[in-house]
Amino acid sequence: MTRVILTVTLNTALDLTYRVPALTPHASHRVSDVAERPGGKGINVARVLAALGHDTVVTGFAGGPSGAVLRDLLAPLGPVDALVPVTGATRRTVAVVDTATGDTTQLNEPGPVITPGEWAAFLSSYGRLLRGARAVALCGSLPPGVHAGAYAELIRRARAAGVPVLLDTSGEPLRRGVAARPDLAKPNADELTQLTGSRDPLRAVHDARRRGARAVVASLGPDGLLAAAPEGLWQAAPPARAQGNPTGAGDSAVAGLLSGLVEQLPWPQRLARAVALSAATVLAPAAGEFDAAAYEELLPGIDVTTRATAA
Amino acid sequence: MTRVILTVTLNTALDLTYRVPALTPHASHRVSDVAERPGGKGINVARVLAALGHDTVVTGFAGGPSGAVLRDLLAPLGPVDALVPVTGATRRTVAVVDTATGDTTQLNEPGPVITPGEWAAFLSSYGRLLRGARAVALCGSLPPGVHAGAYAELIRRARAAGVPVLLDTSGEPLRRGVAARPDLAKPNADELTQLTGSRDPLRAVHDARRRGARAVVASLGPDGLLAAAPEGLWQAAPPARAQGNPTGAGDSAVAGLLSGLVEQLPWPQRLARAVALSAATVLAPAAGEFDAAAYEELLPGIDVTTRATAA
Repeated sequence: MTRVILTVTLNTALDLTYRVPALTPHASHRVSDVAERPGGKGINVARVLAALGHDTVVTGFAGGPSGAVLRDLLAPLGPVDALVPVTGATRRTVAVVDTATGDTTQLNEPGPVITPGEWAAFLSSYGRLLRGARAVALCGSLPPGVHAGAYAELIRRARAAGVPVLLDTSGEPLRRGVAARPDLAKPNADELTQLTGSRDPLRAVHDARRRGARAVVASLGPDGLLAAAPEGLWQAAPPARAQGNPTGAGDSAVAGLLSGLVEQLPWPQRLARAVALSAATVLAPAAGEFDAAAYEELLPGIDVTTRATAA
Repeated sequence: MTRVILTVTLNTALDLTYRVPALTPHASHRVSDVAERPGGKGINVARVLAALGHDTVVTGFAGGPSGAVLRDLLAPLGPVDALVPVTGATRRTVAVVDTATGDTTQLNEPGPVITPGEWAAFLSSYGRLLRGARAVALCGSLPPGVHAGAYAELIRRARAAGVPVLLDTSGEPLRRGVAARPDLAKPNADELTQLTGSRDPLRAVHDARRRGARAVVASLGPDGLLAAAPEGLWQAAPPARAQGNPTGAGDSAVAGLLSGLVEQLPWPQRLARAVALSAATVLAPAAGEFDAAAYEELLPGIDVTTRATAA
């Protein structure tokens, strides 16, 4: 069996995009255009990994009519569907885009309540999937009913199976997940501040490592990525600020880091790939897609600098 | 076969209600509560008719995953489902309610494109349903692909079958529908102004009758209903302005008028019923439902006055 990259999205979503001339609170709007795509961070990561040529499997939960639509939309896209069926309905997210400015208003449903039996079924499936995995990414928020230590539990199982594990979440699940010693944590600036209490990214990435993550890559929006690992400390940034829709840029960075990890690339190359994929996602016209030509063009121009490791 | 009341909703909807603390354009919102209900004006009318004890059949179009959910939600509610299946997906509407104030922001998808074959299938089904109908209500907007003269066509067929027909729509479909001589048109103040060019309701209801409607009942929001018929001219209003959510109040008025028509009630009783149902809908906590106890309490207090018939 070819070993695959596994991504976990416990709170998958059916992402709807509505285009309106301009959103006005307390008014009625005719939506001119409706787009539906399978969503949730780990699904986005898997789509980018598949586009990079990696065999990829997605797991997590899907249920109800929205879950069925999500699976139908996912089927032709590349990643293999190993989602665990649940009784509750997969959440929808609605992105309302003002056509004039491109500004987006986001409405996110909370997601289905996961029962203890459904969580047990997931754990059993996850254990089987780990046996065929080269790496695993744990991505996004937890649906109602799943305990805050869920990612910590999934990290311990991955480590026990010898599978490198990346964590991309926030709040208490991030705090408890980091303490379970993942190979890589990828917080954004806000998540990193919430975890460490520090607004200084350099200080905060070191603190996050002390809390248990083997390596930490912080995404700093247009400033690119700051990486702290046993092998060193780097900052990677695109040559110019990309103009466009930042939806999914962080997920593309995760895909870049994870593919670089399984390909055993040196850190500077992993980071350059992650930054180029992230910028190519901002530049793509459809939210959460990446522009493959832009990626190839951007990659050689990514500036990766070594920083002093003293924090 | 018991003869039924038929309601037609060509552009049915799966109505979603999202509760958020306050909608802020270009921000991200966690939706605290999601409600789904089968929607579209004729569906709402049919639910009120069923609650009043009338055998009711709904037709129109339903398709895709959202259409399947709509039909599942409709099944236990009373009206018989005679919706015609289509390939396109039934539209969703999203009502975003600010929990603090109750103010609502509405987002309406356009609806599926109806093919000529689907329209022909509907006409054939409609002809069969008319044979068992005591009255028919034609309600709401037209989905893409259905011609602006569609309601006029349905009115001519109802008249040919000897079935009284009520029209509740807007714009060009209303203009052309009124010209096809429906038994009753129920525009609101804006629709009436758009049809006649007049902002004076009294002048406008007479003008709408001259354009072809046998009777016209204009809904004037908190001012109640103004009715112009061959039998006379009346205004009906609740004793006090009802505080609450006006969603569905007009549909409840249609149900009151239609039930009064098939029960051959005198006009003042029809209007009192319509106004009481409408106010009881504003008072109900759930959008588009009516409060049965409030209806019974309000009904004796509705003030119906005869007005001079000269316009």
